[in-house]
Amino acid sequence: MTYCLGIITKAGLIMAADSRTNAGVDYVATQQKLFDFTLPGERVLFICVSGNLSITQSVLALLRRDIKTHEEHNLHSIDSMYEIVRYIGRKVRQVMEQDREWFKKDGISMTSNFLVGGQVQGEEPELYMVYPQGNAIQASKETPFLQIGEAKYGKPILDRVLTPETSLDDAAKCALLSIDSTMKSNISVGPPINLIMYEADTFKVHNELRLKMGASYLLAIRKAWEYELRTAFERMPKIEWDNQAMSEAKPEDDLVD
Amino acid sequence: MTYCLGIITKAGLIMAADSRTNAGVDYVATQQKLFDFTLPGERVLFICVSGNLSITQSVLALLRRDIKTHEEHNLHSIDSMYEIVRYIGRKVRQVMEQDREWFKKDGISMTSNFLVGGQVQGEEPELYMVYPQGNAIQASKETPFLQIGEAKYGKPILDRVLTPETSLDDAAKCALLSIDSTMKSNISVGPPINLIMYEADTFKVHNELRLKMGASYLLAIRKAWEYELRTAFERMPKIEWDNQAMSEAKPEDDLVD
Repeated sequence: MTYCLGIITKAGLIMAADSRTNAGVDYVATQQKLFDFTLPGERVLFICVSGNLSITQSVLALLRRDIKTHEEHNLHSIDSMYEIVRYIGRKVRQVMEQDREWFKKDGISMTSNFLVGGQVQGEEPELYMVYPQGNAIQASKETPFLQIGEAKYGKPILDRVLTPETSLDDAAKCALLSIDSTMKSNISVGPPINLIMYEADTFKVHNELRLKMGASYLLAIRKAWEYELRTAFERMPKIEWDNQAMSEAKPEDDLVD
Repeated sequence: MTYCLGIITKAGLIMAADSRTNAGVDYVATQQKLFDFTLPGERVLFICVSGNLSITQSVLALLRRDIKTHEEHNLHSIDSMYEIVRYIGRKVRQVMEQDREWFKKDGISMTSNFLVGGQVQGEEPELYMVYPQGNAIQASKETPFLQIGEAKYGKPILDRVLTPETSLDDAAKCALLSIDSTMKSNISVGPPINLIMYEADTFKVHNELRLKMGASYLLAIRKAWEYELRTAFERMPKIEWDNQAMSEAKPEDDLVD
């Protein structure tokens, strides 16, 4: 499987991805899932991919070919993030149409998702997810992150920490913790982890990191996080089984927030 | 959706379940998912259910009918947990066979899972999960819990806290935190939460709790847990982007544990 996430705050963008790929549990390999289409000084553009590897690779090949052949519309010429995302969606549809019948014959999953983050001149930084159907959604202030692949294990920490005001350093740390929680629970998500930090309006990659299996920082945050969680757990109030009041509702509050 | 979990430690059993059910997002209702078939002094037996409501209700109806009509094999007569679980599996298969063709015609999901925990005289307490195919697995020392339904959001805390040595009070607290994390991320899992504690070799329910929407304990642990997680997050080591050593592997360690 795959786990990629993008975070957008007032300060800029974080994009992160694992690198493990598998076809069944008996074929595990390493594949890059975070791609940088930045033109320094002009535009920054990152794409993360999940799903069927042949589909995502085909889409990336078409995107690169259009840049190389100087097609009128390509990742380096289109002048808005929204139009870039629609353009990527058209490539997804093209590949899906080419292969759909043959996948269907053998009941093979055609899922593929793309995270697209970046900034073009004259716009704010933006972050999108492109669906396998070629349509897209944008991250917002209410939920300043998007995830693709194995999203559930790593979501609780994002839900609890991230706001549009989160600093880029904290957002990057949160992304790594989110990926580490996912690796702990799903063995098909694994290192190297690629992480990119982009500071809004600078039009160049600010920081870049590639953490391999056993990287000292990954080991350090895993150990520290486990210690902190266990300590936090011990500090939680005990259940008082005989205290009726603790199970009664406070009407002014609502648990579903 | 549903989230139920069972925890088995040296000290006994914890079983917990939410109560929200939905057919699409526009039909949400409350349904009991934790059922007590205990005969005090003789045997304790709890069943949690997830999946298609008509299937789980049909299975429970068949189980109750066999008790009522004093069938030779029923939940109160079979004298081993393993045989009880196989018997439940046969009921699951019977219902699946009755309905399979009709579900298939309309492409409706036939998933249903059962957690079965308890103790009969002469045996240790045991915890099982029955699959929709009627087969079953048992919780072990290595992983002293089983989950059904929306399992992923609430798994990280279980992975990090539970061992066979965990006290029943801690296991119960851990179960509630696991359910609370799930409710925070999936609105189709919701209160009331039912929680049962069983102390090994006592052959009666030790503690029982039903936490309604907005129960003061649920609000207290949610608030405390969020505070602790944020504080823990702030204590995590910062990423040092320029420090090459932090991304290098320590060969003696392995991240996948």
